[in-house]
Amino acid sequence: MHFVIFINGAVLIFFGGAMGLDAILFQSTNRIFLLGGLLTAFAGSMLTLAARQSQVQMARLDAFVMTSSVWMTAAVAGGVPLFLWGMTPADAFFEAMSGITTTGSTVMSGLDKTPRGIIFWRAMLQAVGGVGFVVTAIAVMPVLKVGGMQLFRTESSDKGDKEMRNAAMFAAATLRVYLALITLCALLYLAGGMSLFDAITHAMTTLSTGGYSGYDASFGHFQSPFLQWTCTGFILLGALPFAWYIRVVNRRVFRNDQVSAMLWCLAIVILLLTARLIATSHHAPLEALRLVAFNVVSVVTTTGYATADYTGWGPLFVTAFFFLTAVGGCTGSTAGGGKAMRWLLAWRAVVAKVTNLQSKHRVTRIKFQGQAVEEDVLNGVVVFLVFYFATFLMLTIVLALLGLDLETATSGALTALANVGPGVGSLIGPAGNFAALSDAVKTVLAFGMYLGRLEMLTVLVLFTPVFWREYGLHLRPPR
Amino acid sequence: MHFVIFINGAVLIFFGGAMGLDAILFQSTNRIFLLGGLLTAFAGSMLTLAARQSQVQMARLDAFVMTSSVWMTAAVAGGVPLFLWGMTPADAFFEAMSGITTTGSTVMSGLDKTPRGIIFWRAMLQAVGGVGFVVTAIAVMPVLKVGGMQLFRTESSDKGDKEMRNAAMFAAATLRVYLALITLCALLYLAGGMSLFDAITHAMTTLSTGGYSGYDASFGHFQSPFLQWTCTGFILLGALPFAWYIRVVNRRVFRNDQVSAMLWCLAIVILLLTARLIATSHHAPLEALRLVAFNVVSVVTTTGYATADYTGWGPLFVTAFFFLTAVGGCTGSTAGGGKAMRWLLAWRAVVAKVTNLQSKHRVTRIKFQGQAVEEDVLNGVVVFLVFYFATFLMLTIVLALLGLDLETATSGALTALANVGPGVGSLIGPAGNFAALSDAVKTVLAFGMYLGRLEMLTVLVLFTPVFWREYGLHLRPPR
Repeated sequence: MHFVIFINGAVLIFFGGAMGLDAILFQSTNRIFLLGGLLTAFAGSMLTLAARQSQVQMARLDAFVMTSSVWMTAAVAGGVPLFLWGMTPADAFFEAMSGITTTGSTVMSGLDKTPRGIIFWRAMLQAVGGVGFVVTAIAVMPVLKVGGMQLFRTESSDKGDKEMRNAAMFAAATLRVYLALITLCALLYLAGGMSLFDAITHAMTTLSTGGYSGYDASFGHFQSPFLQWTCTGFILLGALPFAWYIRVVNRRVFRNDQVSAMLWCLAIVILLLTARLIATSHHAPLEALRLVAFNVVSVVTTTGYATADYTGWGPLFVTAFFFLTAVGGCTGSTAGGGKAMRWLLAWRAVVAKVTNLQSKHRVTRIKFQGQAVEEDVLNGVVVFLVFYFATFLMLTIVLALLGLDLETATSGALTALANVGPGVGSLIGPAGNFAALSDAVKTVLAFGMYLGRLEMLTVLVLFTPVFWREYGLHLRPPR
Repeated sequence: MHFVIFINGAVLIFFGGAMGLDAILFQSTNRIFLLGGLLTAFAGSMLTLAARQSQVQMARLDAFVMTSSVWMTAAVAGGVPLFLWGMTPADAFFEAMSGITTTGSTVMSGLDKTPRGIIFWRAMLQAVGGVGFVVTAIAVMPVLKVGGMQLFRTESSDKGDKEMRNAAMFAAATLRVYLALITLCALLYLAGGMSLFDAITHAMTTLSTGGYSGYDASFGHFQSPFLQWTCTGFILLGALPFAWYIRVVNRRVFRNDQVSAMLWCLAIVILLLTARLIATSHHAPLEALRLVAFNVVSVVTTTGYATADYTGWGPLFVTAFFFLTAVGGCTGSTAGGGKAMRWLLAWRAVVAKVTNLQSKHRVTRIKFQGQAVEEDVLNGVVVFLVFYFATFLMLTIVLALLGLDLETATSGALTALANVGPGVGSLIGPAGNFAALSDAVKTVLAFGMYLGRLEMLTVLVLFTPVFWREYGLHLRPPR
């Protein structure tokens, strides 16, 4: 427990430092960020000092508390400068949670005239949240065994120092890949004609599959096909498993079932919708392909940039984008949603069940990357998908209770839970924003993003009495 | 195959006879029904004569072809008098399919002034469809092993004459229970002040969980609380397993897991929604309870009667009724939807999977009625629910492609597939009807009802080449 407090303190100090950086870079908002940074860093120092005598050892139950608390702490810290800048507490919390979870839903309008220090802060929240999630997904989730993530447990990920060292090494490698991709993306954005500020902030929100933009028109502000195709490509790169990059670079192992599955799915959906758009609109074929590819990739990878109000293309697109919201990118990437790995395993499990219906004695084993998948991984995947739907249903009902209509409630719940950003409908669609919603609705949606980012069970387990009973036993010092 | 043709001929003759009965009872439309009856009976006679030399023996593959073709034949035959009466082919097919599948969606308005012969025909379609479905579900589905229905296979349901005799005995017992309940219901309706005609037609559409009414205001035409409570009760009786009645009467065995599950769920939903309605409207508590109980029971049992435009009660109710559409009644009843048995087994499977996540070596067995459920039953249930969702998704996308908005497309697809009747939204909600939709949309929805009634796989298996390859081998005469 002490270690958990220590880590939360460290997170606060980190965010305090980040605010300091923002204060140095941007003059017009430097008082806000200086004050916010000092407050946050001070609170963080107090926590780390209070918990300094702890050991580094951490048990599995600690990991649940740590993960859940760190992400909440980060969201609160992220909201501090927004609050100081004049946003209401609910707005600041929503915006920061949307940033840190790389959702990208916003309550702000008039972005084109917002101080650059604030725009940079939003981009920074997403960049930090993105890499933080990759590390969480690969270093922590397999230990928690949430959603079948134990599939990605390495041989060496047992308890003890070695695990810690491995996690640290992996985090460092991930960070290098991430920063390299952001830099490359920013350079191409510069080459495509963006200003330095736009290139850096948009590269940060591209690779993090976050989708915050400095403009009300989102990425549609940049009408250059080169920039839009570049963005489509780098969003996709952000939605691929970072551990795969490391494997490809180190060991030249290219095969990856979930990457293939995601790319095939995207290709089919994009081709079908492009054909439809060409048939029903005045767009030239290549333009239609660009529009559809950008917006489909953006939604499926849970980024949430938009280059057009695709909900105006007709009811088929509204329906398609509504359901695409739930899909998600790959596990171990910055993307949210159900994740390609889980849909693939669920699909294979269903195919196996259909096959088993035909013949009496055959039992088909389900494979992933050529290896048989263990029963508890499949259980985890099924439980995840059921909780995904159940949480969606609960959020929808609460939002309807708070007065949202069916379309806005279902779409809002889904876009928050899958960390996408925009929903469908006139209010929260790609051309709207979340400003007009009540504080209660915003708070529920922010909580939905939080649940979605931590794959529900990481948080929900904390609401079970049995967890705290076991945790109490664990905290009691050994005799 | 000969036997399949023979049965279809017999169905046509039966419907021809039913039209004759309608012609005798109602003078104003007797020419239509006489002509329709003669045509249908003639076509049926041709078929039975052509196939008369067949044996009664029937293989499992025959059962798929027979079930799918019989229900399609019945829908076409049911539409004949409606077409002769002046409806377009698409409308007549939609209305008859909606009747025979006990869905209850209608393209007709001005029902209050429609000839009684037509109203009676619609009620008869539902009454026949209802009991037909119970017999299909218990005598045929377990043999097809669709959707885990083999759970209800009796020890004696092996091939041969004995199976046929058992099925016939069961069908006769079901018919007795069904007619007894309809008679009792009609008597209570009479006692509550309905005319004889209204009592009989509404009793027929109540017990079949069909929901066709002779009035545009649906059951809301009858403002008597006694009638509405009676109706609520008898709808529920129609949604309970008919085999359970027979067991209760013959052997005094009351325990039934799926009945308890459905009643508990209904009680909780009704109490919560009643509390909400009391809090947000001017209705007195007892009146609110009656309104909520009637409409919730009507939608969950897939009946589709309405006593109020519940979508006007606020967004929570729209959302609740949207999702309640998918639930359904018990297997082996006249109700459609996902069915209480499947939700219960799926729920227990998920609970078992969550439990298995905690401990390494425990494997929880899933029980139903106190007995361990076999793996292939669970597979069937999972495959059913996945196909249920997949079919819903496909129907929604096709409807969106045909121009329906997201709410109407999703709700229309779901209400057709679950055989409920009304959807949500202004167009197809409880206060609207399906008349304004295009012929293409009506045909897609009618096909959705057909798929839903036959639990998807019974029909979809006919679209696989492997089925026809095997069937061809089976048809070849033995050497």
